[in-house]
Amino acid sequence: MANAALDVLGIGNAIVDVIAHAEDAFLEQEALVKGTMALIDAARAEALYRLMGPAIEASGGSTANTMAGLASLGGTGAFIGKVRDDLLGSVFRHDLTAQGVRFATPAATSGPGTARCLILVTPDGQRTMNTYLGACVELGPEDVDPELVRAAQVTYLEGYLFDPPAAQEAFRRAAAIAHAAGRKVALSLSDPFCVDRHRARFRELVAGHVDILFANEAEICSLYETTEFAAAAAAVRGQVAIAALTRSEQGSLILADGAEHAIAAQPVARVVDTTGAGDLYAAGFLYGLTRGLPLPTCGAIGSLCAAEIISHIGARPEARLAELVAPVIYAAARRLGLEQ
Amino acid sequence: MANAALDVLGIGNAIVDVIAHAEDAFLEQEALVKGTMALIDAARAEALYRLMGPAIEASGGSTANTMAGLASLGGTGAFIGKVRDDLLGSVFRHDLTAQGVRFATPAATSGPGTARCLILVTPDGQRTMNTYLGACVELGPEDVDPELVRAAQVTYLEGYLFDPPAAQEAFRRAAAIAHAAGRKVALSLSDPFCVDRHRARFRELVAGHVDILFANEAEICSLYETTEFAAAAAAVRGQVAIAALTRSEQGSLILADGAEHAIAAQPVARVVDTTGAGDLYAAGFLYGLTRGLPLPTCGAIGSLCAAEIISHIGARPEARLAELVAPVIYAAARRLGLEQ
Repeated sequence: MANAALDVLGIGNAIVDVIAHAEDAFLEQEALVKGTMALIDAARAEALYRLMGPAIEASGGSTANTMAGLASLGGTGAFIGKVRDDLLGSVFRHDLTAQGVRFATPAATSGPGTARCLILVTPDGQRTMNTYLGACVELGPEDVDPELVRAAQVTYLEGYLFDPPAAQEAFRRAAAIAHAAGRKVALSLSDPFCVDRHRARFRELVAGHVDILFANEAEICSLYETTEFAAAAAAVRGQVAIAALTRSEQGSLILADGAEHAIAAQPVARVVDTTGAGDLYAAGFLYGLTRGLPLPTCGAIGSLCAAEIISHIGARPEARLAELVAPVIYAAARRLGLEQ
Repeated sequence: MANAALDVLGIGNAIVDVIAHAEDAFLEQEALVKGTMALIDAARAEALYRLMGPAIEASGGSTANTMAGLASLGGTGAFIGKVRDDLLGSVFRHDLTAQGVRFATPAATSGPGTARCLILVTPDGQRTMNTYLGACVELGPEDVDPELVRAAQVTYLEGYLFDPPAAQEAFRRAAAIAHAAGRKVALSLSDPFCVDRHRARFRELVAGHVDILFANEAEICSLYETTEFAAAAAAVRGQVAIAALTRSEQGSLILADGAEHAIAAQPVARVVDTTGAGDLYAAGFLYGLTRGLPLPTCGAIGSLCAAEIISHIGARPEARLAELVAPVIYAAARRLGLEQ
C-alpha cells in the first residue's frame, strides 16, 4: 500500500456534538436506548435540547473523529462530508482543519443547517446519541473527489452514511474508485440499529467491497443476526481481509488470513465518556496499518487511542496521540529490525 | 439578609467560551499576556480563531459562571446579561437555564452577535482570554429589572461590566436599587487590566457602593497601584464590609470587621484549566454567606468549588457542587448547633 500521498481518506457525516450529563432516569423518561444512536428530526432535536442539562459543543462525527485521531497520531488524512454555511459548519471545519486534516468539501448554501448530535452521558460513562442529520442529507456522489480517493492508501467509510439518502451512492462511488486504483476500502458498522436498518445492503457491501471491517460486538451480532459473539466472528471470517472487532473492556479481536489476534484493552482510571471509543480505535488501527505494522501492534495502538478518548468528555483527542503511542511504535519497530 | 426570594442576582457579560489548548510560544507569537483578558474586535476574533487549534464551545461569562455554580450548590439565582437572538445566544440561554438559573433578559434582535471569548489554555493550566464583546454592548440600565434586584439578598456585579459602554449605568442602577431595598452589593474586580482601564471609577465604587469585594492578588494590587499584596490588603481594609482576596494555590484571605481569616486552597491532582477559578470561588463564598455561615466556612466552600472547576476544561461545574461541599456545610452546621 505504498506510493500514496494520503494515509486515509474518511467519508462520513459532518456533525457537531452537543454533550450533556444525564441520569439513567432521563433516558427512560425519553425512551432512549442507552449506548445507541437514534435519528431525530429538527422538531425533536429542539424539544430534546430543551430538556437536556447544561451542555458543551464539540466537533464530532464518527469518521471525522477517526480522521482527527489519525492526524493527532501524525498520519495524513482528508475528510469528505457536508456541512451548511452556518456557524456550526464553520466550527466543524475549523476544528478538523486545525487538527491537520484536509477538508475541502464545499458547504451547502441552502437547505437544513449543519448536523448536530445530542449526546447524553450517563454516570457510567456510556453515551446515548440523538442525531439530527441536517445538511448531511446533501452529501452525494458529486462530493467524492476521485483524486482524493486515488491518493489515499485506505478509504474509510462509516456505516452511518447509509442513513442520509444520497450518501450511499457517494459511498459506492468511493469504493469503486478506490478498488480501481488498487487501494483498500475500510468500513465501520457504526451502530447496531444502523445495521438493522440496512442489513441486506451492509452484508452485500461487506462481502463484495470491504477490505477492512470495524465493528463492535453488538454491531457484528446485528449484521449476522446472532446473539453469540463467537458465531458472529465465525460468520465474518473470510468475508473481509481484516476484521477488527472491538469488545469494550475486553479489548478487541482481529481476524485476518486465518489467524486471530486477541488484543487487550488499555485500562483507564475512570471511564468519563465513551463517545468516540470505536472511532479512535479505528484511527489507531489504520495508523498502524498504513505504516505496515503487524496487526497486533495496530490493535494495541487502537486500544491506546480509545483509552485516551474515554478518559474525558468529547470524541476528539485532547492529548497528542503521537506521544502517547510512541513507546508501542518503537517497540514494534525494534522487533521488526527497523530501528536505526 | 433574610426574606429574599433569591440568594443572588448576577449581572454580567453573556459570553460563550471557545476553548483550545495552546503552547506558550503561541501566546508570545500573538503577543498575548498570559492569565489576563484582552478585548478584541470582530476582525481580530476571526483571525485569532483561524490560528487556534481544535476547540470546544462552552457557555461562560464570569458572573454567569458564578450563577451556574451557585445553582449547582443548591442556591437560587437569576442572571441579567445580553445575548443576540442567534445560535450562540440560544446555547448560552439553554446552558444557564438548564442549570436552574433564572435568565429572562431579552436577546438583542439587531446589532452584533452573541459575545465569545477565545480562551487559550497553556500546558500549565493557565488560561489567556480574548473577548469579543458583541451583543454585550447592548446591555443597559433598562435591562435591570428592579423587582429582581429587590428580590435578591445579594446583587453580584463583575468588573468586566465597565468595558461595554452602557453596562456601567446598569451597574450603578442595580447597586442603587439594591441598597434602597436594604440588600447587599458584591463586586468582582475581574482582571488587573480591566481595573487598570477603569481604576478611578472602580475605587469610587468600592469605597462608596460595594459591600462584598472579590479580587485576586493582581487585581487588588492594580486597584491600589502597589506590587505588595500586604499593602493592597491594608488599603482595602475598611473600604468594604467584606473583602475576599484569592491567591491561587495560596488560598484566600478574608477581611471583615477588623478580623482576617486565611483560607487554604483545596489541593487538586492536576490543574487542567484555571478558567472560572475566581468565578466559582465567588459562587461558593456567596452560597455560604447567603446561608449565614461563618466567613471561614464561606471561604472553604469557595475553595472547594474553585478546585472542582480547575480540574477540568471549561468554567461551568461538571460535578454536582452541592454533593461536593456537603461535608463542609454539615461540619459548619454542627459547630453552630444547627444540626437536627
